Amino acid sequence: MRIALLGGTGDIGEGLALRWAHDTDHDVIIGSRDPEKARAKAEEYAAELDSRGSETKLTGFANEMAADRAEIVVLAVPPYHVADTVEAVADKLDEGDILISPATGMKRDDSGFHYHRPGAGSVTQLAVDAAPEAVPVVGAFHNLAAGRLANLDADLGIDTLVVADDDAAKSTVSTLAEEIEGLRALDAGSIANAAEVESVTPLLINVTMNNSGLHDLGIRFD
Amino acid sequence: MRIALLGGTGDIGEGLALRWAHDTDHDVIIGSRDPEKARAKAEEYAAELDSRGSETKLTGFANEMAADRAEIVVLAVPPYHVADTVEAVADKLDEGDILISPATGMKRDDSGFHYHRPGAGSVTQLAVDAAPEAVPVVGAFHNLAAGRLANLDADLGIDTLVVADDDAAKSTVSTLAEEIEGLRALDAGSIANAAEVESVTPLLINVTMNNSGLHDLGIRFD
Repeated sequence: MRIALLGGTGDIGEGLALRWAHDTDHDVIIGSRDPEKARAKAEEYAAELDSRGSETKLTGFANEMAADRAEIVVLAVPPYHVADTVEAVADKLDEGDILISPATGMKRDDSGFHYHRPGAGSVTQLAVDAAPEAVPVVGAFHNLAAGRLANLDADLGIDTLVVADDDAAKSTVSTLAEEIEGLRALDAGSIANAAEVESVTPLLINVTMNNSGLHDLGIRFD
Repeated sequence: MRIALLGGTGDIGEGLALRWAHDTDHDVIIGSRDPEKARAKAEEYAAELDSRGSETKLTGFANEMAADRAEIVVLAVPPYHVADTVEAVADKLDEGDILISPATGMKRDDSGFHYHRPGAGSVTQLAVDAAPEAVPVVGAFHNLAAGRLANLDADLGIDTLVVADDDAAKSTVSTLAEEIEGLRALDAGSIANAAEVESVTPLLINVTMNNSGLHDLGIRFD
């Protein structure tokens, strides 16, 4: 499949790009508002993979072009850019394409990080609200430590939670997730359950901050 | 130490009572609004432990008497009874005693379970607001599957997240948690971080409901 990572120059985008390019045969397309930056990052990731003897199909384009070329479009952008990113690429999305929302809203105070729930109910729901009706949205990859994902020497052995209202799209994304070595996809139900999934991200940061020796944490359901 | 489990006749109370009685030398006191029920449950738990050759110190009393006898008082009651339970036992609590809040608020809809955040910010904060000033509250044991905890044949191998504003109390409770075999206590920061901890409970239920073959789930941070 062709997977576009909009905002693929950022940290979670980098991790997903490297893992999919390394572990699968899918075409990985880096998207950015700045096409030059997208191309530069695609080259940087390709060089990293090349140094590991991994043959890759990594390209970089403006977000609109990246979305146009892909069947799977990951919104690897900050939560406050999810809606405008979807709107910017909406007319490049075809029926059968799938949007993936990995972003979560957080605010920080003196105690740590807290889930900042959007009025819509979740960031994933924001993506749903902005998406064309024929394009299902799947929430996934919310709770992955970007640094660990981008470090191909790091074992994962962790879970990602998947939420969607479209069962076929959920199944496709779960398969894509499990093609990443060491990642297990668990079904957390429908989009209405996204807030509980997204709020694990600030929790992971709080646990990392308060326990010496723990870094780049993920969760595992056992 | 003497540990009172108020509402210790309920499922999470039963699990904690059995584990502490089995794995440690602490005195475990079952509390209930109905002292007869507390005594009957204490006998039932003692018989279960006796059948495993475990010598136990398990007694049952009305909540007020149970709290009076203990240094550690666990509010193993539904979230809507947390505040009134604290108020009912408040004048039995001494300086140096510690309250533990494991409850979480949930509501259910067609999609699954959702975190029902109290106006105070968290159920743990409700306990803080109701507690005498000299008695610290520690949030812990929120995300444990009661059935697995109460089944002494089940291995745990999972984590519990601990939140508190009083470092000494947090440390005492973390030690008590880790005296349960297979349970690791992780520091999730202050009481202000309790909502993210409590909201893992509905998530665990949603994941259990949506993935066949997974039961009595806990989480592990790796």
